[in-house]
Amino acid sequence: MSDKVKKFKEERERLNAHILSRENVNIKRFFGIDSAVYRDNVLDAKTKELLGLVASVVLRCDDCISYHAIRSKENGVTDEEFDEVMSIGLVIGGSITVPHIRRAYDFWRELNN
Amino acid sequence: MSDKVKKFKEERERLNAHILSRENVNIKRFFGIDSAVYRDNVLDAKTKELLGLVASVVLRCDDCISYHAIRSKENGVTDEEFDEVMSIGLVIGGSITVPHIRRAYDFWRELNN
Amino acid sequence: MSDKVKKFKEERERLNAHILSRENVNIKRFFGIDSAVYRDNVLDAKTKELLGLVASVVLRCDDCISYHAIRSKENGVTDEEFDEVMSIGLVIGGSITVPHIRRAYDFWRELNN
Amino acid sequence: MSDKVKKFKEERERLNAHILSRENVNIKRFFGIDSAVYRDNVLDAKTKELLGLVASVVLRCDDCISYHAIRSKENGVTDEEFDEVMSIGLVIGGSITVPHIRRAYDFWRELNN
Amino acid sequence: MSDKVKKFKEERERLNAHILSRENVNIKRFFGIDSAVYRDNVLDAKTKELLGLVASVVLRCDDCISYHAIRSKENGVTDEEFDEVMSIGLVIGGSITVPHIRRAYDFWRELNN
Amino acid sequence: MSDKVKKFKEERERLNAHILSRENVNIKRFFGIDSAVYRDNVLDAKTKELLGLVASVVLRCDDCISYHAIRSKENGVTDEEFDEVMSIGLVIGGSITVPHIRRAYDFWRELNN
Repeated sequence: MSDKVKKFKEERERLNAHILSRENVNIKRFFGIDSAVYRDNVLDAKTKELLGLVASVVLRCDDCISYHAIRSKENGVTDEEFDEVMSIGLVIGGSITVPHIRRAYDFWRELNN
Repeated sequence: MSDKVKKFKEERERLNAHILSRENVNIKRFFGIDSAVYRDNVLDAKTKELLGLVASVVLRCDDCISYHAIRSKENGVTDEEFDEVMSIGLVIGGSITVPHIRRAYDFWRELNN
Repeated sequence: MSDKVKKFKEERERLNAHILSRENVNIKRFFGIDSAVYRDNVLDAKTKELLGLVASVVLRCDDCISYHAIRSKENGVTDEEFDEVMSIGLVIGGSITVPHIRRAYDFWRELNN
Repeated sequence: MSDKVKKFKEERERLNAHILSRENVNIKRFFGIDSAVYRDNVLDAKTKELLGLVASVVLRCDDCISYHAIRSKENGVTDEEFDEVMSIGLVIGGSITVPHIRRAYDFWRELNN
Repeated sequence: MSDKVKKFKEERERLNAHILSRENVNIKRFFGIDSAVYRDNVLDAKTKELLGLVASVVLRCDDCISYHAIRSKENGVTDEEFDEVMSIGLVIGGSITVPHIRRAYDFWRELNN
Repeated sequence: MSDKVKKFKEERERLNAHILSRENVNIKRFFGIDSAVYRDNVLDAKTKELLGLVASVVLRCDDCISYHAIRSKENGVTDEEFDEVMSIGLVIGGSITVPHIRRAYDFWRELNN
C-alpha cells in the first residue's frame, strides 16, 4: 500500500473512531446502515461500489471517491471499468467534476502501485 | 405503457428536438457523448443505467430518474435491484432525496403496469 | 387544515406507504432514524424542526420545507421566528433559494389559515 | 407577452409582495442587493444577465432561469447568444442540467412569440 | 485557543480584510447582512448559530462549519447539543457529509482543548 | 508568474495528461467540448470566461475558479470587473460561497503580482 493510501485510511479511521466514541445512537445507527447497503445481496458488492463511486464523483466528494476507489479495487474493478465510471460521472456532473476526477485518477494510480 | 410514462417520453422528445433544431455544435456533441457513455462496453448497459439512476437520485433530478428508470426497465432491472439502488442513493444523499425517491417509486410502479 | 396542506400530507403518506411496503430493510431503518433525530432530547423538538427547516431551505427542497413547516407550526413556531429562519436560509443559500422561500411563505400562510 | 410568461411574472410578483409585507429588515436588504448587482456598472446589464442566466442553469433553478431569460431578452440578448450561454452551462453543469435547459429553451421560445 | 483554531481565525480575517479593501458596495452590504441575521432577536444567538451549523454541514462547507462551531462554543453550546446538530445534518445530508462531520468533530475537539 | 500560480498550472497539466493517457474516447471528447465552448464566437472569449468564473463561484469549485481567473486575466478582465462577477456570485450563491470568494481574491492577487 502506498504512503498516500495508508495515510488516508489511518486518518479516516482515527476520525471515525472519535465520532463513534461520542456514543450518539442515531449517528451510530446511520454508520451501521452505511455499511449494510454496500454488502453483497441482489446486486453484488462490486456493482455497489461502482454506484458509490459514481455518486461520489457527481457529488464531488474527494474523500468519498478515495474510499470507494479502495473498495472498488478490493472488489476487482479493472482500470477500464474505472474509466467508464469516471466517464459517466463526468458527463452527468459536468466539467465541475474534472478537478475531482483528476484527483480520483491520481489516487487510483496509487492503488495500482 | 401507462399514460404518465407515455406523456413523459413525448414531452422529453419534443423538447430535445427543439434544442437540437438550434444546430449548436457543442450542444449536439454533448448529446452525442451523453448517449455514448451508457452503451455496452467493458461495463454492460444494465450496470451503466444503474449508475445513471443512483447519480440522478443523489443529484435529486426527477426527470433524470424517470429516464434512467425507463432504461433500467428496458435492460431487465428487477424490483429488488431497484430497491437496492434506491437504498444506496438514500444513504449517500440523505433524507433530502426522499421526495425524489417517493416519485421514483411511483414512476417505477407505472413502468410495472 | 387548508386543502393544499391536506393534499400535501395525503400524497406524502400514500407514497411513503408504498416505499415501506417494499420491505427493504435499509430503507426502513433509514426512515426510523429520520424520525428519531427530531425527537425532544438535549435539544427540544421545536429547535430541531427549525434546524430541519433551514437545512431544507438551503438545499432547496420544497417538499422538505413544507414538511418541516407543518412540524414547526405544530411545535409552536411563530411568524416572526419563521421569518428569522427564512432570513438565515436566504443569506446562507443566496438568491437561488428565493423561489423556494416564496413557496415556503405561501405554504406557511396556508398553515395559518 | 405569452400567457405562460405573463403568469410567471404575476405569480412571482404576488409571492414577492407577500414576503416583503412581512417587513423583515434583513430579507428586504437582501432583495435590495439582489437588484443592485445586476445594474449597469463596469460590466453592462446585458453581460450581468448572462452571468445570472448561466449561474441559474448550473444551479438548476427553473424560476431563476425564467427570470434571467426575461431580463436577457429585455437587454437584447439574441438567440445565438442564448445558445452559447446554454452550451457553457451544459458543459459546466453536465447532463443533470438537461431537463432545465429543455425548459429554458421552451420558455425562451415563449419570449420570442 | 489551540494553534489550529488560531490559524483558522487569522487566515479568515486576513482574507476578509482583503475583500473588504476592494470597497465593492454590494459585497460590503452582503457582509453586513451576513452578520445581522445571526444576532439575538426573536430567536436567540445560540439557536441561530445552530442553524448556521446545520446548514454548513448539509452544504458541506468546512470553513463555514469551523466558523459556526467557534460561534456555537462562544454561545454555550454543549458537546451533546453539538452531537444532535451533527446527527440531524448527517440524516438530512447523507453519508456524503461524513468527511465534513469528521473534520467538524476534530475542530470541535480543538475548541474544547 | 507567482510560484502559487505556476504550481497550480503544472499540477493541473500533469493530472490532465494522465487522464488523457487513458485514451477513453468519451472523456477525450468531453475535454474537446470543454475547450470549444469558451472560444470567441457570438459571445467573445472574455465574456465566456466571466460566465465560467461566476458558474465556478456558485458551484464552489476552487480549482475551476483559479483556472477561469487565469483565463480571465489573459483576456483582459480588470479588477473592477472581477469584483462585479464576485458580487453576483456571492448574491446568487449566498454566504456559503464566501470561503471560495476569499480564496478567489487571494489567487487573483497572485495573478496581479
